[in-house]
Amino acid sequence: MRLAHSRISSTETVPVVGRGDRWYDLRPLHPAVGPAVLTLDALAAIRAADLPEVDAPTVFAPPLTSIGKIVCIGLNYTDHAAETGATPPAEPILFMKAPDTVVGPTDDVLIPRASVKTDYEVELAVVIGTTARYLASADEALAHVAGYAISNDVSEREFQIERGGQWDKGKNCETFNPFGPWITTTEDIPDPQDLGLRLWVNGELRQDGTTKDQIFGVAHVVWYLSQFMTLYPGDVINTGTPAGVALGRPDGGFLRDGDVVELEISGLGRQRQTFRQA
Amino acid sequence: MRLAHSRISSTETVPVVGRGDRWYDLRPLHPAVGPAVLTLDALAAIRAADLPEVDAPTVFAPPLTSIGKIVCIGLNYTDHAAETGATPPAEPILFMKAPDTVVGPTDDVLIPRASVKTDYEVELAVVIGTTARYLASADEALAHVAGYAISNDVSEREFQIERGGQWDKGKNCETFNPFGPWITTTEDIPDPQDLGLRLWVNGELRQDGTTKDQIFGVAHVVWYLSQFMTLYPGDVINTGTPAGVALGRPDGGFLRDGDVVELEISGLGRQRQTFRQA
Repeated sequence: MRLAHSRISSTETVPVVGRGDRWYDLRPLHPAVGPAVLTLDALAAIRAADLPEVDAPTVFAPPLTSIGKIVCIGLNYTDHAAETGATPPAEPILFMKAPDTVVGPTDDVLIPRASVKTDYEVELAVVIGTTARYLASADEALAHVAGYAISNDVSEREFQIERGGQWDKGKNCETFNPFGPWITTTEDIPDPQDLGLRLWVNGELRQDGTTKDQIFGVAHVVWYLSQFMTLYPGDVINTGTPAGVALGRPDGGFLRDGDVVELEISGLGRQRQTFRQA
Repeated sequence: MRLAHSRISSTETVPVVGRGDRWYDLRPLHPAVGPAVLTLDALAAIRAADLPEVDAPTVFAPPLTSIGKIVCIGLNYTDHAAETGATPPAEPILFMKAPDTVVGPTDDVLIPRASVKTDYEVELAVVIGTTARYLASADEALAHVAGYAISNDVSEREFQIERGGQWDKGKNCETFNPFGPWITTTEDIPDPQDLGLRLWVNGELRQDGTTKDQIFGVAHVVWYLSQFMTLYPGDVINTGTPAGVALGRPDGGFLRDGDVVELEISGLGRQRQTFRQA
């Protein structure tokens, strides 16, 4: 099952549910896909409901409203750690993105005015469905996940690394988290550690990885985070990116005005953004 | 003018306005103090309104709902940078706290289960009133501020510094941002760089500073942040802490179950928390 918002106009979106090739209007049950939609009971009610069929969306807005927090895992693929010159971490590296950075999967992304190193990162995003707090083991973790989506964890590398401390400075620029097109619920993703991730810049394949290569898998990450913070329904975890980012390329390849970035993850759809100067 | 939420019961709060020694019910104008209350027009309407007087609150909830993001400035007082062994930063250090860490000014704070280094930080919190994006200079910045409050930027130092990367890991534990008791609007704080900050642990004065000693003042910080991210109404900036934290004391003095922390800032009231083991 897929949860999404169909963008009808610049001001109107409709919550929709996808099953197979068909789409249905979620409004008889919920005015929007927010945290309350992600609980086990709410998802079961949606699966059982007889909802009116609608045309397939042509434009998607972000698939989740009222995101509480976005927690990001850094250097979580061996090949990406190597390309940035970093030692693979002994435990997950954690940083934060503000929910106000989220835009739809085909919305423009703004290159910050002072930026010379705007970069892309295709990432598996984990959407929390039920509160996770001090989980006893990773075995419990996936039961707290409602679904998965694509995040482009857009990053300004000079801001992140060369401007005096803490990565958040290069991760929270406006529009820096394209999200969606939809949330695929967990019954359709039997193994989150077997998903291909790909990203193209102007048609050139730059990232081509698999979540098999995550240093810390989804279950470990959810368990680990729950020792340091409480994860609530509607929280999102960006689980890191494989090799191929501009930061790791000898020739750079940072994004410029007019560049088009496309990204996809198996079962989670496809994004396409045009980058524009802010 | 002060904006707050009076806690009537465990489930009910009432938005209130303080003028001098008197308090008034804000509900004829707004159901809660949220971002929409912080605009210039909304604040002017509240000042002009004839609201019903109420008893002074006895317990305060957090004075703001729907906080968008909390941006924190690190090592922003020369004496605090020195006590932690750090070089004073050349430009502001930025990290993030999730809004779900916010609790009321007298609520219990939970010491994380694996914590041995839970620490306190009295901080001037800046509450944004109007959107700030690429401000041309610091001279424009204070016009975007709606008011000021106290934050206790509670921190777990082992999580923050010794657990593999990025300070956010020690800043986002549940209950780690006591906030309030109220927001004092800017007309009552003519100079945010002339406020005394004090913090006691079990009655012992540990921090006794002034915002005169901020390396980067409020106007500079708001201008600076606006180059890296967009600040929206209802965003909060914790502007750093003066010397005296446990991390900087030769004998430690980290917080233990049952410890009582009190903190105050001139014109912004007083907080008092009991720390409890999670």
